[in-house]
Amino acid sequence: MKKMWSGRFSGESSELLEAFNASIMFDKNLYKQDIAGSTAHAKMLAKQGILTQDECEKIVGGLAEILAQIERGEFEFRLEDEDIHMSVEKRLSQLIGKEIGGKLHTARSRNDQVALDFRLFCQEAFLQIRGEILNLIATLNEIAKAHKNTLMPGFTHLQHAQPVSLAFHLLAYAFMFVRDAKRLKSSYERNNLSPLGSAALAGTPHNIDREFVARELGFGGVTQNAMDSVSDRDFALELLFDISVIFTHTSRLCEELILWSSQEFGFVSISDSFSTGSSIMPQKKNPDVCELIRGKTGRIYGNLIALLTTLKALPLAYNKDMQEDKESVFDSVSTALNSLIILNQMLKEAKFNEQNLANACKKGHLSATDLADFLVREKGVAFRTAHFITGKCVARAEELGKDLSDLSHDEISDIDENITPEAMKFLSLEASREARKSQGGTSTQSVNEQIRLLDEWLGRNA
Amino acid sequence: MKKMWSGRFSGESSELLEAFNASIMFDKNLYKQDIAGSTAHAKMLAKQGILTQDECEKIVGGLAEILAQIERGEFEFRLEDEDIHMSVEKRLSQLIGKEIGGKLHTARSRNDQVALDFRLFCQEAFLQIRGEILNLIATLNEIAKAHKNTLMPGFTHLQHAQPVSLAFHLLAYAFMFVRDAKRLKSSYERNNLSPLGSAALAGTPHNIDREFVARELGFGGVTQNAMDSVSDRDFALELLFDISVIFTHTSRLCEELILWSSQEFGFVSISDSFSTGSSIMPQKKNPDVCELIRGKTGRIYGNLIALLTTLKALPLAYNKDMQEDKESVFDSVSTALNSLIILNQMLKEAKFNEQNLANACKKGHLSATDLADFLVREKGVAFRTAHFITGKCVARAEELGKDLSDLSHDEISDIDENITPEAMKFLSLEASREARKSQGGTSTQSVNEQIRLLDEWLGRNA
Amino acid sequence: MKKMWSGRFSGESSELLEAFNASIMFDKNLYKQDIAGSTAHAKMLAKQGILTQDECEKIVGGLAEILAQIERGEFEFRLEDEDIHMSVEKRLSQLIGKEIGGKLHTARSRNDQVALDFRLFCQEAFLQIRGEILNLIATLNEIAKAHKNTLMPGFTHLQHAQPVSLAFHLLAYAFMFVRDAKRLKSSYERNNLSPLGSAALAGTPHNIDREFVARELGFGGVTQNAMDSVSDRDFALELLFDISVIFTHTSRLCEELILWSSQEFGFVSISDSFSTGSSIMPQKKNPDVCELIRGKTGRIYGNLIALLTTLKALPLAYNKDMQEDKESVFDSVSTALNSLIILNQMLKEAKFNEQNLANACKKGHLSATDLADFLVREKGVAFRTAHFITGKCVARAEELGKDLSDLSHDEISDIDENITPEAMKFLSLEASREARKSQGGTSTQSVNEQIRLLDEWLGRNA
Amino acid sequence: MKKMWSGRFSGESSELLEAFNASIMFDKNLYKQDIAGSTAHAKMLAKQGILTQDECEKIVGGLAEILAQIERGEFEFRLEDEDIHMSVEKRLSQLIGKEIGGKLHTARSRNDQVALDFRLFCQEAFLQIRGEILNLIATLNEIAKAHKNTLMPGFTHLQHAQPVSLAFHLLAYAFMFVRDAKRLKSSYERNNLSPLGSAALAGTPHNIDREFVARELGFGGVTQNAMDSVSDRDFALELLFDISVIFTHTSRLCEELILWSSQEFGFVSISDSFSTGSSIMPQKKNPDVCELIRGKTGRIYGNLIALLTTLKALPLAYNKDMQEDKESVFDSVSTALNSLIILNQMLKEAKFNEQNLANACKKGHLSATDLADFLVREKGVAFRTAHFITGKCVARAEELGKDLSDLSHDEISDIDENITPEAMKFLSLEASREARKSQGGTSTQSVNEQIRLLDEWLGRNA
Repeated sequence: MKKMWSGRFSGESSELLEAFNASIMFDKNLYKQDIAGSTAHAKMLAKQGILTQDECEKIVGGLAEILAQIERGEFEFRLEDEDIHMSVEKRLSQLIGKEIGGKLHTARSRNDQVALDFRLFCQEAFLQIRGEILNLIATLNEIAKAHKNTLMPGFTHLQHAQPVSLAFHLLAYAFMFVRDAKRLKSSYERNNLSPLGSAALAGTPHNIDREFVARELGFGGVTQNAMDSVSDRDFALELLFDISVIFTHTSRLCEELILWSSQEFGFVSISDSFSTGSSIMPQKKNPDVCELIRGKTGRIYGNLIALLTTLKALPLAYNKDMQEDKESVFDSVSTALNSLIILNQMLKEAKFNEQNLANACKKGHLSATDLADFLVREKGVAFRTAHFITGKCVARAEELGKDLSDLSHDEISDIDENITPEAMKFLSLEASREARKSQGGTSTQSVNEQIRLLDEWLGRNA
Repeated sequence: MKKMWSGRFSGESSELLEAFNASIMFDKNLYKQDIAGSTAHAKMLAKQGILTQDECEKIVGGLAEILAQIERGEFEFRLEDEDIHMSVEKRLSQLIGKEIGGKLHTARSRNDQVALDFRLFCQEAFLQIRGEILNLIATLNEIAKAHKNTLMPGFTHLQHAQPVSLAFHLLAYAFMFVRDAKRLKSSYERNNLSPLGSAALAGTPHNIDREFVARELGFGGVTQNAMDSVSDRDFALELLFDISVIFTHTSRLCEELILWSSQEFGFVSISDSFSTGSSIMPQKKNPDVCELIRGKTGRIYGNLIALLTTLKALPLAYNKDMQEDKESVFDSVSTALNSLIILNQMLKEAKFNEQNLANACKKGHLSATDLADFLVREKGVAFRTAHFITGKCVARAEELGKDLSDLSHDEISDIDENITPEAMKFLSLEASREARKSQGGTSTQSVNEQIRLLDEWLGRNA
Repeated sequence: MKKMWSGRFSGESSELLEAFNASIMFDKNLYKQDIAGSTAHAKMLAKQGILTQDECEKIVGGLAEILAQIERGEFEFRLEDEDIHMSVEKRLSQLIGKEIGGKLHTARSRNDQVALDFRLFCQEAFLQIRGEILNLIATLNEIAKAHKNTLMPGFTHLQHAQPVSLAFHLLAYAFMFVRDAKRLKSSYERNNLSPLGSAALAGTPHNIDREFVARELGFGGVTQNAMDSVSDRDFALELLFDISVIFTHTSRLCEELILWSSQEFGFVSISDSFSTGSSIMPQKKNPDVCELIRGKTGRIYGNLIALLTTLKALPLAYNKDMQEDKESVFDSVSTALNSLIILNQMLKEAKFNEQNLANACKKGHLSATDLADFLVREKGVAFRTAHFITGKCVARAEELGKDLSDLSHDEISDIDENITPEAMKFLSLEASREARKSQGGTSTQSVNEQIRLLDEWLGRNA
Repeated sequence: MKKMWSGRFSGESSELLEAFNASIMFDKNLYKQDIAGSTAHAKMLAKQGILTQDECEKIVGGLAEILAQIERGEFEFRLEDEDIHMSVEKRLSQLIGKEIGGKLHTARSRNDQVALDFRLFCQEAFLQIRGEILNLIATLNEIAKAHKNTLMPGFTHLQHAQPVSLAFHLLAYAFMFVRDAKRLKSSYERNNLSPLGSAALAGTPHNIDREFVARELGFGGVTQNAMDSVSDRDFALELLFDISVIFTHTSRLCEELILWSSQEFGFVSISDSFSTGSSIMPQKKNPDVCELIRGKTGRIYGNLIALLTTLKALPLAYNKDMQEDKESVFDSVSTALNSLIILNQMLKEAKFNEQNLANACKKGHLSATDLADFLVREKGVAFRTAHFITGKCVARAEELGKDLSDLSHDEISDIDENITPEAMKFLSLEASREARKSQGGTSTQSVNEQIRLLDEWLGRNA
């Protein structure tokens, strides 16, 4: 069977070449985009008088039938069809005849066709992933509402630092994901331009209407230089990067959930439905989902570096190297969607152990700063002196085997005259948390405001 | 000399630790941002009554004096000062006394201070790099204006494909850089929020005004969750990524300039002032600048993957790993600025060899497609037949040792009756180029529109 | 259907979890290794008296039957079997009964089983890839033998530098691939140790013989610490890196073949069987294979960074993140094998255009250095003066529109008295090439020695 | 001031170019290698009669003086010297006169000179880093000797799995580092070949003795193809990769030390001399060194991807892109040395909290597997049944609020008749650990053997 481009060739294609060169086994993924693009293109050709209305209807009908066949699983993709574009075009000619089928490719080339299909895929992916991010933000916000008063140690360097609420801690992730959603939308908008009509690299002599095709397909406009249009893959790089940042965030969240699930922390219990066990050790319950999402960060970063590397130093315009753009994107997109969906579901079922979270606050004298602050603010003690006095209180607590927050006034009143009875209320962990009323702080008032902002933002963006 | 945080420590710091831990030797780069941030913070503390007006003036004056000392080269950065924040604060206390100097750190911590300084640096970098990108677009557009009629072969797969103009080819890069400029601006806007006031991780009990500080420093608002604010480095990732895409583009342009400078292509001559020679081979003139920019793509991608890797799976909030965020960003930013400036200058002085560009069009029968298109469009010949007839004409040209575009009517009129005298005008390379009048095409009309769009866009964005 | 590890679980597994967690759809790739490992393990258990001889025979027979079923395509891999290990074990119990089948897992765990299977796969891959590298070296050496006298310009900075032979240029690649072969063998040998018997992480109380299993499977010994053994993936990192270096080399070779195939260079013609054309432009012949191999460098580097990222900062011992180790390795290995095979075949059929290569040497005054060297060596002229005289000769050649190597004695004898008739022989391009007789140089004598070394090395390593 | 290669140039170098092009500010790092290489080259030239003995002595003496000046800090490196090679050569001519100084560059070029210098640097780095790795292994082995009986939970999925000894756990890292040491040595040996004498790309007409230079510099031989020799950077890629694997290992160790330092784990206490505190929170002690080493994994991976990217698809032979090879290597080497030295020192001073490690074993019923194994092995109970019985015992332990290992026979004897008094000894955590006597297991016997192997290996390799 002769290739459509084989006119000038005397030798046969090597079988090795056929297998090595074909992209059909992965770009079949683009069947919906390819058919949508061809349908819009046919309508434009008819509108411009390049196709008759009748020819257009036959083509559009044929394409619809192919779509139906594929979705019913009746369409066999074959290696010798090379790619999804050839595959669909061949089938179209079988359905409506070569003469009309062959006219569909007027005024375009595979170079702008693949640029269109792949861009349509990526544009849809920006929106889909953003949708799952919004779901995740909503879930985190709901959990936060239920845990405004759940006290836990805030960490820096994985050491206890200051008391916070679980709500506050989880909202940190919610705000990361808000940035992700905004970044995805920005990428979507910046790249929402149709490349079709750029043809091989230089435009076409046919009297086409690129804006019409763009509108048909939901684009906001058209690209401005044909040579750039067929060699541009910035939109795919942005998608791979946006997903990489998302996984930076999810890897951090999953790392914490893994730590919190350990016997040592005991802060959270992942539900049985999202855990696995051991065939040998009956006591085991493993946080596999979190580990997998954390581990998948590797492939997500790898996919980004892969496409960057492929594109480095390519001369214009289209080069076959660019066929390597798709698999990494397909992999990152499905990995992102699956990971976000399961992470969201798992979070909904997770049980936070309020008792263990509270007990953990009793380690590390978390309210030491508050005592020092009291001495400075209310008693006019110099910070250095305040620090010294507080240090002595911490030492007393250690001697007594207690946390600073559990001391009575009698136990430390002899250390300095400024440790008045009212000082004691600053040692309370709840008081410490509630004191941090600054914008974005961990006090209930500040956290309520954060929750409100998220609800409002979700309302505007849903 | 005791560290400020050494209160609870009985042992001395290891000397190894001091050298390993210190960031002063690279974060001194942030001196301007640190002083600007501290100045705004002091003014806010005064406005809120936490500092007196007099204290504020002393602090602001002291900071201004330190800035002047640094810019005069009179400020010695020492390893034992650990970081730029400590270094400035120590000097401040020496200048205005410990009592007042020590009050500057009220209601903030190093965690939000470094987050602020580094964000200010990145925000400025987005704008600076965007400025150089605009310069580069302007240069490309000017060269395009001078080369609207310079014919050259358009390439795909590095094979001659269709005739284009040099203007059209260079505009492809201009439109890539337009996307880069938009992406930089979008990153700038998305991250233009002040983190100051987040304190260590949980906010502060002091009655601060974060919006005031934000306005003083040119931010559009404040971040919303303190824990996120001290551990967020998305803005740095975006900067590293935006620069990576720029280098994807510049590496492609430089690859072409290197090819075009070769004896085989001979399309361009880089000026002596941007070339180097060989001490041994007197005939050599090397396009070093292009090679260096192409080669620097490595460090730019490496810096991106470095920060992604560092951030992977870090628990909240601040961890010392994050000190590793700066050097890669400093390196990418200075590499980008230097590369864009020299690339722009080099392009301005480059001489394009119009004769060689035109001669190159005489290889590869670039107008074959146009003949086939004529037969289909004007003579109603089926595409397959048209393709066959054209093939025979190409074969005739090969026999005669000529390019298809150089044939006379007599030389091919016997091949098919549809090859009428009017067919011959479609074999002209200029005609081929001019035919591509579609939006974004290579015809002079389309190229003029592209140039106009760029001029207009530059006018709006300068 | 209950999971084997579900004893302690009250809730059902989420369906989301099942799909997300399962590795069967890619680790079925390891079926041969899994069955070989289980067979060796069963034999060892029998030798140690843990299984009876009869049990062992039933197990070994059952495993052989499963292998045959898989290779006949009769074995259905199902998502609910989770992984290849469970899948094989379940089938074994169906074939020979649960009681005996269940004994196979004695004294091992999935942790050391997967470590074994994956290591066996990688060890085989080191050798297979090395085999294809040896084939490629042999091909390059054969082409070199045929092109010892084919003159061509040697390039630096993609500028003509000095004349070399095509043989010499291609041998540069042969010696790169020799390093690759050595690196692969070194990786193979360093990692040729069996991890089986490490059990979950701490070894096993059963009286096993790990050395016996190692010998059965062709390993050179056993690993020395069980916890390291189940969490070690260095062998996979080495494989991904070794392939990355190979693609650094093949990307360079393919870049050159693409350049050399261009109309501008015209140094080589890829055979039709390894080229593709254009459905629109009948004159096109594209070097797709070279472009694809160059482009695939992206995924190869990406796979390396993916696994490095996944392994970063994982606590001991096994973590589920490590399930992400396989797909990148499978992809890099098959990409490497396919690319090396087709590259080798394509090179065998490539035609080098000796005329164009020779003509190219007439640009750039490639023998200028030789004239200067003659003046220094034979006439005692100082290098600076010699450089100046040569410069005048180059200028004269430019005036006459000739290459330096085409001048007659009369045309330059007036420039300096030291330009004697014997000087002229140093201007010859062949003489220039032949003069470089140093070890590793481009003279025929040096190239013959390089060819001999390669033949000898290939003879020893085949 | 004219460049040495500026003969053919009419225009002046741009100042931008000078700064962009110069490498002196980082390749001055190679001064020792450059001087050693030049010294060996001069001796060879004299031996071959190309230099007189007197000329050689002057050159060697001059180079020795330059080395002394540099090491005394009296040598000023200036941007206009471009690179270390030019810088040293210029100074040499100032010291011993241009006539003799100028002869040093006979029969070599900057291309093979830089290839030599950089390779010498990398070869030394392989050995230095290996030396620090050996120190680290020795330290881990010493700590293991002191903690053979320190019981701790072995983890998988960061969940308690089976009891192990701290010695066993730390030895896992020792064996990782043994692989690193072997890999470094293998890289060293594979690349221990001198490229000098390859000249610009094609060898030299001078009668040189490359083997002599190789021996002088400690190489095992010479490279075999000049064009490959000047464009080969495999040795640098190997160095960057070997360091990447080391940081995969150190990042895992540091992650564990950070976890173990947390209030929740409390397994280890880093000494004050390797910790830092907080100026605000007096109770904080942060494991900064571990965090920094973990964080530096980013730059180490980034440096590897940087050089891979730079080398991708470069045509032969030398291209200016390759100037980008050095900074990433210098950074990775110094990062590795500093990190390994401080990690080693920090480990020596770390205090492991045996009580907390032992207490942790009382969570998670770590000996459950051992009870089930007893029932199978000694009582002939089917595994499923044994699993069920054990499950009931675990449930009883939970009811009683005890760990399985703390139960008395009376408390569970009613569950099944097979739970005989002798069964109870299998519930002991120490017994569980001691049972794992397989090669590489956690029993004292197995651990002793591991320690012995390491001591022996260190003895052979020190």
